[in-house]
Order: sequence, then C-alpha cells, then structure tokens
Amino acid sequence: MTDHYAHWTKQIDGARIAHQIEQLSEIGRTPQGGVTRLAFTREDAAGRARLREWMSAAGLQVQRDAVGNLIGVLRGKNPDAPILACGSHIDTVVNAGKYDGIVGMLCAVECARVIQANGGLNAPLHVINFAMEESARFGAGYGFGSRVMTGAEISKQELFARDRSKVLLARALQELKGWETGAKIATERTALAAAHKDIDASRYDWTRVRAFLELHIEQGPVLERAGKPLGIVTAVAAPTRLQIILNGEQNHSGTTPMPLRHDALAAAAEMILAVERLANEFAAQRVVGTVGMIQAEPNVMNSIPGRVELRVDIRSADADAKRACVQSITRALEWIASKRGIGMELETLTDETPIAFSDAVIQSIERVCAAQNLDALKMPSGAGHDAAHVARVAPAGMIFIPSRGGISHDPREFSTPTEITRGARVLLGALAALDSTNPKDPRADSRTI
Amino acid sequence: MTDHYAHWTKQIDGARIAHQIEQLSEIGRTPQGGVTRLAFTREDAAGRARLREWMSAAGLQVQRDAVGNLIGVLRGKNPDAPILACGSHIDTVVNAGKYDGIVGMLCAVECARVIQANGGLNAPLHVINFAMEESARFGAGYGFGSRVMTGAEISKQELFARDRSKVLLARALQELKGWETGAKIATERTALAAAHKDIDASRYDWTRVRAFLELHIEQGPVLERAGKPLGIVTAVAAPTRLQIILNGEQNHSGTTPMPLRHDALAAAAEMILAVERLANEFAAQRVVGTVGMIQAEPNVMNSIPGRVELRVDIRSADADAKRACVQSITRALEWIASKRGIGMELETLTDETPIAFSDAVIQSIERVCAAQNLDALKMPSGAGHDAAHVARVAPAGMIFIPSRGGISHDPREFSTPTEITRGARVLLGALAALDSTNPKDPRADSRTI
Repeated sequence: MTDHYAHWTKQIDGARIAHQIEQLSEIGRTPQGGVTRLAFTREDAAGRARLREWMSAAGLQVQRDAVGNLIGVLRGKNPDAPILACGSHIDTVVNAGKYDGIVGMLCAVECARVIQANGGLNAPLHVINFAMEESARFGAGYGFGSRVMTGAEISKQELFARDRSKVLLARALQELKGWETGAKIATERTALAAAHKDIDASRYDWTRVRAFLELHIEQGPVLERAGKPLGIVTAVAAPTRLQIILNGEQNHSGTTPMPLRHDALAAAAEMILAVERLANEFAAQRVVGTVGMIQAEPNVMNSIPGRVELRVDIRSADADAKRACVQSITRALEWIASKRGIGMELETLTDETPIAFSDAVIQSIERVCAAQNLDALKMPSGAGHDAAHVARVAPAGMIFIPSRGGISHDPREFSTPTEITRGARVLLGALAALDSTNPKDPRADSRTI
Repeated sequence: MTDHYAHWTKQIDGARIAHQIEQLSEIGRTPQGGVTRLAFTREDAAGRARLREWMSAAGLQVQRDAVGNLIGVLRGKNPDAPILACGSHIDTVVNAGKYDGIVGMLCAVECARVIQANGGLNAPLHVINFAMEESARFGAGYGFGSRVMTGAEISKQELFARDRSKVLLARALQELKGWETGAKIATERTALAAAHKDIDASRYDWTRVRAFLELHIEQGPVLERAGKPLGIVTAVAAPTRLQIILNGEQNHSGTTPMPLRHDALAAAAEMILAVERLANEFAAQRVVGTVGMIQAEPNVMNSIPGRVELRVDIRSADADAKRACVQSITRALEWIASKRGIGMELETLTDETPIAFSDAVIQSIERVCAAQNLDALKMPSGAGHDAAHVARVAPAGMIFIPSRGGISHDPREFSTPTEITRGARVLLGALAALDSTNPKDPRADSRTI
C-alpha cells in the first residue's frame, strides 16, 4: 500500500505538540519535577481549560458531557458516515510524568488540526478527552469517563469512594461541573443523585462509531528493548488480583527457638518467590506476576511477624495462560502455608477478562506503518487504557510509542519528540485510511479472548 | 544438700502474690484485657505507689533514687555483711500481660516478707524495683533504671528521645519525680540538665553486693516444651541487628516483562529465607535469626517494588556462633543482591556482646533446686533483663518460670500460681543459701562470654 495521505502526515507539527506537552506540564508541577493533576481537581480543571483552547483552535466544536468527558467534533463531508474517533486523557497520578495520556490526547488534537486544514475527512471526526482515566485519586478502577461513555455500570460503592481529603467521588464530579459550567455545586447529600443523573446523561452512542483509536506511551520497556519505533496493540491484559492473609504465631524474636516458629513473614517470602517463579514459567505467554504490596504485623524488631498481608497481581492478554498461572500459584501458596503450619485466607479481589482489539483496526494501522516504512511490533498492553473499555462496545485499536527505560508514573517518564511525531503520523494515517476504505461493519472483530 | 530453709520457703504465700498480680493488672487495664503501664506515666506512678505500700508492709524501708528506682532495705543481723539483692520491674509494654517483670518483683517482696517474719538474714537484703525496664515508650535500649544504677553511660540522644506524644524522656523523668516527691517539675528546657544530675546521683554501689537475683517469666516456649518446672539462666543473649536497604527498579507491574525486572521485594524474599535457613544451621548453638520488619515502596498493587527495607535481628548467648552466623548471613545477602542486580546498603545497628551470669550464683540456685526436688533446666535467655546489666558490675543470676505457649508482651501471657509460687520458693532458698555460706568474692565469675 502506498500512503495516499503522505502530504497530510508531513503537516504534523512535532514542535507544536512538544510545546503543548511542556505547557501542560506546568499545571500541577511538583517540587520533584513531576506533575500532579489528579482528576476533578482545580489543577485538572486548569489543564482541561487549556486543552479546550487547543481543541477549539484546531477547528473542533467542543462539547462537555455531564461527567466531564470532552468531545471535539469536526464535521465530515458526509455527515451521515460512521464516525471516526480518537483520544486519550490528561489527568495524572501523583508526581507523574508529562506523557502518560497527554501525548495521545495532544497528538489526536494535532491530527484534527491537520485534517481540518486539509478540508476534513469524509466521515465526522470525534476527538475525545476521557475524564479521570487514572484511579490514583479515588482508588477505584481506571477509566471512569470511558466506562461512563460506554455504559459500563458504575457502582454506588465507587461513587461513594473518598480521596485522601475525604472528598466523595460523586461530590468531586459536581465540583468540576460547577467550576466548568457555572452550575450550582451539589452538596454531599445531593451529590449521589446528581452523579447518577449525570452518568445516565453521558452515555455515548457507539453504534455510530466506525473505529476508535488511542495513541499512548508504552509505559514498559518492550519496544525500547526490541529496538522497535512503534507498537500496534493487539489486546489489553487484564489483572487477576489476590489478597493473601497469613496467620502465623507472633512471638518474641529472642526467646523462640527456630524449630518452634510459625513465622508469617518467612512463609510470605516463600510465596513471593513462588509467584515470581511460576509467572516466569508462563513468560512466553507474556504472563506477569507481581507481589506489589506487603504488610507485616506487628512489624517491630523484636517480634516474629504473626500476620502478613500480601497482594498479588497476575496479568496476561492470554486468558488461558493467565488462568493456568493463577491456578499454579494458588496451589503453591496453599502448599507453602500447609507445610509451615500457617493459616491462610486467599481472596480473589478482581478477575478481569483480557480484551482484544478489532482485527480490522489493527490491520489498518499495520498497513499505515508499512506505508510509512515503520517496523512496528504487534504486542499486548500490560496496562489498562480507555481504549480497552471502548473495545467492548465499538471497534478500537491502540498505537504505542516507546517509553525510555520503560519508566512511567514517574517524573523521569520520557519519549522523544521524534517518537511522538512518528506516533501522530501513524494515528493520522490510520484515521485517513479508515476514512477512505469502504466501511463494512468491523464490530464482529472485537471479541473477548 | 538438704534445704535448711524448708520451713521458710513453706511460708511463701502464693495466694497473696496472685492477688497482688491481679490488683496491679487493674492499673492501666486495656479494653483487650491487657495492661498498658508505660514507664514514667501516671499509670506507672499509680502502680509504683501500690508496690511501695506492699514493700513497706513486708517490712522494707523504701528509698527512691533520683531516677525512680525503688530500693527496699531490710537490715541484716550483720549490717556490714555484703548485701544480697533481688528484684525486677513493673512497667509494661503497650497492651501487655500481667506477668512480665511483675511476677519477679512481687516474688521478691514476698521473700522479704517471709525473711522479715523469720527475723531476717545475716546480710542486709535490698529489694530493687528498676525503673523503665521496657523500651516501649521511648524506643531506646531496655533497662534504663538498671543501666543508671550500674553506671552505664546514658547518651544525650537517649535522653532526647520522645514518646508518641512528643514528651522527652528527660522531661518524663522529671514528671515522675515531681508527682512522687512533690519536687518542682523541670521544664523541657531544663529537663536535660536535671536528668544528668539525677543520673549521676542514682549510681548504686555494687561493690557492696554479694549477689543479685532476678526471677522472671521465660517469655519463650523452651521450659514448657521441655516439660521443666524451672529454668536457671546461664547467660543473656545479645542481639546483632542489621538494617538492609534494597534498591531495585520500580516499574509498572503490568507492562514490565518478568525477565526485565529488578524486583526489590523478590530479592528481599530470598534474603528472608536465607536468614531463616542460616539461623537454623546454628540452631544447636541456640542462634535465632528473625526478619521482624519489612517496608516496601511504593507498596501499591500495580508497581514492582523499587525499594525495600528489612531489619534483621540475630541473637545468641554464644558470641562465636552468633558472629559466624552473622557473617554467613551477610555473605548470602550480598550474593543475592548481586545476582539479582539489586543495590544493597547494609548497616549494623547494634552488635552487643552476650553476658554470662556468675557461676557461683548459678551453682547456688542449682543446689536449691536439687534440695527442693525440682528438675530445673540450665538455659540462656533470649530476651534482655535488668539482671544482665547488673551482671556487668556484680555477681548475678536469674530464675525462669514457664510461660504458657511461650507467649509474652500480649494479654494472653500466663504462668500458673503453682509455677509462680515454685519460683518464689527457689528465689527465697537461693537468698538464704547465699546468706548462710561463707562469702568469698564471687565477682571473678562474672565474665563476658
């Protein structure tokens, strides 16, 4: 395939994107050189206001839905053609980098600018800024805004979550709305009812969408290690999360001989190594297993730990491999607890199903990469993204650009301007390619694997 | 040997001791059924006031030194004979049991009562209540009062330690003194100078002491497991404490393939098991090794831990075995860090020398046990005690009674009335035996092993 839109993609202005990344990173700058722009805060509102200016300047008609997703619309030459959509998010974790979400959002806006400058696509283009992708502020699942737009159920428990300052998620939603629209801010008492109403009002009609594309930094080391300029994401891994509570015998560390101990931390140590070893056995299927959290009690120098809590995160885009690995790990943990005479309570906190992206969308991106002479790598995503929520209701796909050192959620997060520009060009190429090919309904390609 | 004092030891009133234990446990009672009587608090002062009444009722002339140690004196028939001393402590940890320290103190008072009722010993008897044996309130080393009385150096840093309510140790000393003597309570500004003065004034003349005896609960499971009614303590183990800081690479737990990880927690797990395995190799020399504290960062579900801090406690009464074990552990940890590509900082926080009790005192207790038909076990103590500080300056020994389940520093701490009475009888027998044998200077027996 030749790149019929080469003259468009050459108009992508990498310097403009780089400048916008810097400007956005000044809002919520931390002393450590990172950015804290937690969703639905004043900083988030300031970042969103700046983004709206850039969206409008790119020619987009920006609408705000009731929970704060921003939808920038560019009319198509054929207003009835199925919509092409793209976007990402700009909220951040605490002391984040400048790129996670932001790069994809600004590249989408830049694509819109170029498309508008060239007279538009055949189809309407919707550039979406999803509200609160990060779970950092309230601790619930990621992608609140994309879950609302795609009609996923938002539990009462999630709306009742509170941040560190004890602000309710439901109330924070109303605060942002008040600041941005001048609407009266609901009290905590009325916030829940208002949130439910806003959530119902924010469902988006995905049946009109031909494809959704999200550009994102990889947040991992795979592309860099493989020496590849770009990733085409085939699927999004989903976590199975286990909580393990170990009850041993707390005793004086000086007076209890080694053979008489039931040390909960020593049992936990054996379990941590079992998780590592068994995940390694499934490394070919890209299973990863991590013990990220540990809490020992009483956690003092002169006591044998009597109680330890672990949290285990096991992920893969390959549902069968993940299931087999989780089973092996569970069996190993039970054996370790039993042989050490340690009580174990194992609870599955989450057991999510991996989601595959649309084959049609993946193929479109592949053809664009070939036309642009990019040796892209097809790969699963280990992290969750808004596009994974969209993929449940519409054809979707993702483009990854490399992350230096695989570092993310950290001020050292970095992708080069060249990598970013390259990503924007592929995004634009894919939108143009999808616009120029015959639309057949590719929704059948979106399946759960 | 026959027990010439059998008619004395039969006068030990176990019911009285049991009653006093219950009465004391009501001062500072916790909702969980335990006792919190931290040193130098109002609760401690109330417990001490009650103790003073019982000491006086037993015929002791009670003196308070400037840091709060209580010394109850019973004149001897020969006032110039070397002093016999015994005692323990009554301050507690948070949510403690009723027995740690308290049993030994009340048994000593009961011995004094019986001795006084029988016309006294040849030698003067000093019954000592050491102030602040527990390190729970200020976190410094154990046995503040016994260190002061034996002239050990108390560092400025220790006097400047603050409790959870930010009260200075130096100031707490003055508070107790104020409540108990009516003296003006020094301000925080003047408390340090006052504390130095009080410490200097509280040094006790141990050259006049023939022997010091402390009865204590074992706080471990050895006697119960061995089915022995009583322990004769040969030495007090001393800890070597290591702080280990591991620096790996914090990364996203979903996006970082297993082979590319430098997981600080997985390295820590391997180290915890190495400590357990190597301490077990020295179990015959009664070495114990414990990782009691662990702190992982960032300690969240979706990050590979980048930094882990461990604290390791290695103890033995056998200095050579302990040194060899510490060396093996250090080498193992270095190897684990190196093979995993993890940075390690290892710091020795404490490296104390075990202390042996006086052979002459041990032999006296052994003879009394034989006379009382008790199959006692000679054993080291894994925990520290006031008697260990005394042993550095005077002949000392300890008697252990069993702790049910080896549980201590916990509301479930328990020893039976029979075990307590048996301990008091051995204590009384040993005091009487030491009083009736020719005093030769046994101080040469107190050596550091």
